Amino acid sequence: MGAGRPLLPMMDWARGYDRATLSSDLVAAVIVTIMLIPQSLAYAALAGLPPQVGLYASIAPLLLYAVFGSSRVLAVGPVAVVSLMTATTIGGLAQAGSAHYGVLAVTLAFLSGAMLLLMGLLRLGFLANFLSHPVISGFITASALLIAAGQLKVILGIKAEGHNFFEQVLGLLRQAPHTHALTAAIGLGTVAFLFWARRGVKPLLCRLGLGPRLADGLAKAAPVAGIAATALLTWAGQWQDQGVRIVGTVPQGLPPLTLPAWDWSLWQQLAVPALLISVVGFVESVSVGQTLAAKRRQRIVPDRELVALGASNLGAALTGGFPVTGGFARSVVNFDAGAQTPAAGVFTAVGILLAALLLTPALYYVPQATLSATIVVAVLSLVDLRILRSTWAYSRADFLAVVATLGVTLAAGVEPGLVAGVALSLLLYLYKTSRPHIAEVGLVPGTEHFRNVLRHAVRTSPRLASLRVDESLYFANARVLEDRVNALVAERPQLRHVVLQCSAINDIDASALESLEAIDQRLQDAGVALHLSEVKGPVMDRLRGTGFLRHLSGEVYLSHYQAIAVLAPEIVEQASLV
Amino acid sequence: MGAGRPLLPMMDWARGYDRATLSSDLVAAVIVTIMLIPQSLAYAALAGLPPQVGLYASIAPLLLYAVFGSSRVLAVGPVAVVSLMTATTIGGLAQAGSAHYGVLAVTLAFLSGAMLLLMGLLRLGFLANFLSHPVISGFITASALLIAAGQLKVILGIKAEGHNFFEQVLGLLRQAPHTHALTAAIGLGTVAFLFWARRGVKPLLCRLGLGPRLADGLAKAAPVAGIAATALLTWAGQWQDQGVRIVGTVPQGLPPLTLPAWDWSLWQQLAVPALLISVVGFVESVSVGQTLAAKRRQRIVPDRELVALGASNLGAALTGGFPVTGGFARSVVNFDAGAQTPAAGVFTAVGILLAALLLTPALYYVPQATLSATIVVAVLSLVDLRILRSTWAYSRADFLAVVATLGVTLAAGVEPGLVAGVALSLLLYLYKTSRPHIAEVGLVPGTEHFRNVLRHAVRTSPRLASLRVDESLYFANARVLEDRVNALVAERPQLRHVVLQCSAINDIDASALESLEAIDQRLQDAGVALHLSEVKGPVMDRLRGTGFLRHLSGEVYLSHYQAIAVLAPEIVEQASLV
Repeated sequence: MGAGRPLLPMMDWARGYDRATLSSDLVAAVIVTIMLIPQSLAYAALAGLPPQVGLYASIAPLLLYAVFGSSRVLAVGPVAVVSLMTATTIGGLAQAGSAHYGVLAVTLAFLSGAMLLLMGLLRLGFLANFLSHPVISGFITASALLIAAGQLKVILGIKAEGHNFFEQVLGLLRQAPHTHALTAAIGLGTVAFLFWARRGVKPLLCRLGLGPRLADGLAKAAPVAGIAATALLTWAGQWQDQGVRIVGTVPQGLPPLTLPAWDWSLWQQLAVPALLISVVGFVESVSVGQTLAAKRRQRIVPDRELVALGASNLGAALTGGFPVTGGFARSVVNFDAGAQTPAAGVFTAVGILLAALLLTPALYYVPQATLSATIVVAVLSLVDLRILRSTWAYSRADFLAVVATLGVTLAAGVEPGLVAGVALSLLLYLYKTSRPHIAEVGLVPGTEHFRNVLRHAVRTSPRLASLRVDESLYFANARVLEDRVNALVAERPQLRHVVLQCSAINDIDASALESLEAIDQRLQDAGVALHLSEVKGPVMDRLRGTGFLRHLSGEVYLSHYQAIAVLAPEIVEQASLV
Repeated sequence: MGAGRPLLPMMDWARGYDRATLSSDLVAAVIVTIMLIPQSLAYAALAGLPPQVGLYASIAPLLLYAVFGSSRVLAVGPVAVVSLMTATTIGGLAQAGSAHYGVLAVTLAFLSGAMLLLMGLLRLGFLANFLSHPVISGFITASALLIAAGQLKVILGIKAEGHNFFEQVLGLLRQAPHTHALTAAIGLGTVAFLFWARRGVKPLLCRLGLGPRLADGLAKAAPVAGIAATALLTWAGQWQDQGVRIVGTVPQGLPPLTLPAWDWSLWQQLAVPALLISVVGFVESVSVGQTLAAKRRQRIVPDRELVALGASNLGAALTGGFPVTGGFARSVVNFDAGAQTPAAGVFTAVGILLAALLLTPALYYVPQATLSATIVVAVLSLVDLRILRSTWAYSRADFLAVVATLGVTLAAGVEPGLVAGVALSLLLYLYKTSRPHIAEVGLVPGTEHFRNVLRHAVRTSPRLASLRVDESLYFANARVLEDRVNALVAERPQLRHVVLQCSAINDIDASALESLEAIDQRLQDAGVALHLSEVKGPVMDRLRGTGFLRHLSGEVYLSHYQAIAVLAPEIVEQASLV
């Protein structure tokens, strides 16, 4: 890696930039901008922040990602899950809407950015791998359910609190009789419209004579249309006087210059949430980026992505924003709309900047229920309960990890949920590798192949036992092999040779080496010789430096067949007679 | 396991018990009893308990182990490391020598016994496997150094305190000028005598005309001789009046009947230490037991051992003792002296009981420095610093685990040391498996073998890439394969086939399956087909139930050679021309 790669990824594409690329990028930027304006407002609200903060968080991060990012089409900004994590983290420390809340958001983005940057520079991107797919799936589904439950109260115009998902649902049911009818009509109407718009708008526009490309682009504007329509209706009916809560005054202007709070004890409090936000954001961003890059035979570099996301979050922190990452929906739209280079991101940033400068007065009459409706529709597409069925069928350990992550997140919140999921999946993996599959194998007659004696009709001898260990040997499983060999020796008085077929052993650590030495010593004491066969190159290299091979009572054979032919020719002869 | 095994191991040997076995067992019991008396007194002192407690802890546990244990020669009782852990645990909660201290010791033995019993009944013996050899080595060496440093102040007759090893050593150096000359003469004299006795007594006795067997037995009595000699000298000189600290009055009689403190909050405080004591004791005991059993083609059953050690510790708790386990030195002596069955343990228990009943007045004049000297000589044989060199040479990860365990134990104590060692070795293992060795392989000309392209002169084709992954695929490493394949596709425009050689893949979890699906999808998007070869039976069984194989763009081949012959025959043809 790294050889011949330019210092900044943009050097790759900036040289060949021409008019055709410019036009593709501009078209994509317009479409993404239209999509991002309502999303940014909504995710800021989800994070407990004023709407303009969502716009701010979509400007500097987009620009910085364009400079440092290795994906050509990834669009960075506020996303649902990270906004929820932000709200959960800061909600416990400050009142939503207060100035302090905003400072905490900026500080969280700063810490997250610094961590991502550091992880990138130290090449620690592999840490994200410890979030398994089942844990991520369970976590995202649970987060989406938490978000949807939280937004429903805004859509229904009621007050309902709850410390976890189940309490929230219970609170919604209890408060349902107090639903504010007009608010609910706006909110649920928008939800229905957006669900319909997903499938219905494009065919309708095509039937009206528009080209499919244009129809597709316009369909992306459905949330904007919903916001505009409900804002107009609210203005016309002055519904805010009838209890419909509106966005209200949104300050107009450039993003402010902000600094994080320099407070060490606060940093300690925010450190774990910031780390979790960083890792979740990174995982989400990289998987989107990789999927899109592969479609054009491009490549993204995970450690580069860490640096780019780190810079983006630092940018968000310096411009009054909150934690951001690469978003799935917006990146796919950017890709589909034909974006060729990160310049599309720069143009999108300019578009959002213009919105922040000029458009905010138009947001005054937007009902909060409409914003919540766009969130609910967006996050419900993240709910994936099929993972429960598929992991149940494929692997009980993975199923347990999904259930634990999902259950703990819903019952206790995003942080405990993630931690429980990661811890459980690691423990289950260790448990699995600590009980390796050890097969006693015998010769398949007429071949040089060896198979499990329990599954196949194979030839063996009471004088020789062949064991195949289907796992690398390390401290957690080395003693299992000891037990197995001890049992063999105790059960078979005629035993003279034990041969370990090592074809699936990728590593032998110091504990396993001592176990092998102990096995060899005990076998010698019992008058049995220990042999190895099919030891891999790298494993053999390490064993060569040790006393184990010098003291080994038996030999190391290149193939298992060779070992048997030498040590127990009766097996081979029997077999060839059949 | 378990089929045809009797309910109690003793049913195996009690039936065939005859006069010859009885005589072997009796001889062994006499030798072990002589060895155990000073050891028991010394380890009780090390644990901060009165000397008779050491005798009590060597009676009931020996009897119970004889009934439940699966080893025929293991001798159970107080051992150095567990005594140190007991002192560390209780020392923070009560004054050594107080009645409360004794109650805490009994409670700790009770909790440890209950945990061992429970682990045995739930078949959780595998948990002990997570203590790797390097961690155990580092821990035992550090414990031995801690013990020796702690005993040196008794040997020198000075007062020196320290919260960790380094402070203890510093304290010893500072207080050295206040050394009590007579005490030091006794203590250091005993140390020198015991070191000499190890090698010098047996040849001397042989030269005096004794048979080697008898000489060997008498050599084992060296510590008793040392104790008797210094006690006699102290009595003759009435040295206790000159500041030599003696054992003093030791109550005479049967072990008392005791009960643990029924105090839930105390149990919570003692839970973690009790668990660590249980696991360390179990690991020490099982490894001794296995080594000795193998020499006679016998076998010990780890889950049985948990039950037996659990019963032994419960027995210690009910008879005024403290945590016990199977000891190395005493078991080896028992074995060498010819013990045939656990009846030898029963006879030893009777011997110790007689000592508790009759011998304690004779202990009055024994100098404490003599007991400390026997401890120092015993534990110094546990110090093994060669493990540092051998792990450095064999595996840096194991070396780090030793250093961390050793360092943290010396600097912060036994509990943090063990926990740090286990945590670090697990993390290092996870780190290692998260970065699997992935080799690109090519055909060795004239064979059907495939080898790493970087190491061997092999045949490849720009149209096909063969990858061999040397690790099971799971969540922590699945993305590494994704990255590698993405890089290949981005670098090689001519690429049409990727073949994964799966011979070393023992498992594919749900995350890795999703990664493989993502890889396949991305390869399809890029016009490349993904194939598998040499997939193991159990892995194939699980894959068959999934959509992955149905959607796979390529095929699954039995052998890698077959795959290449079909997909890139030019490689095979080139090769055969050579």
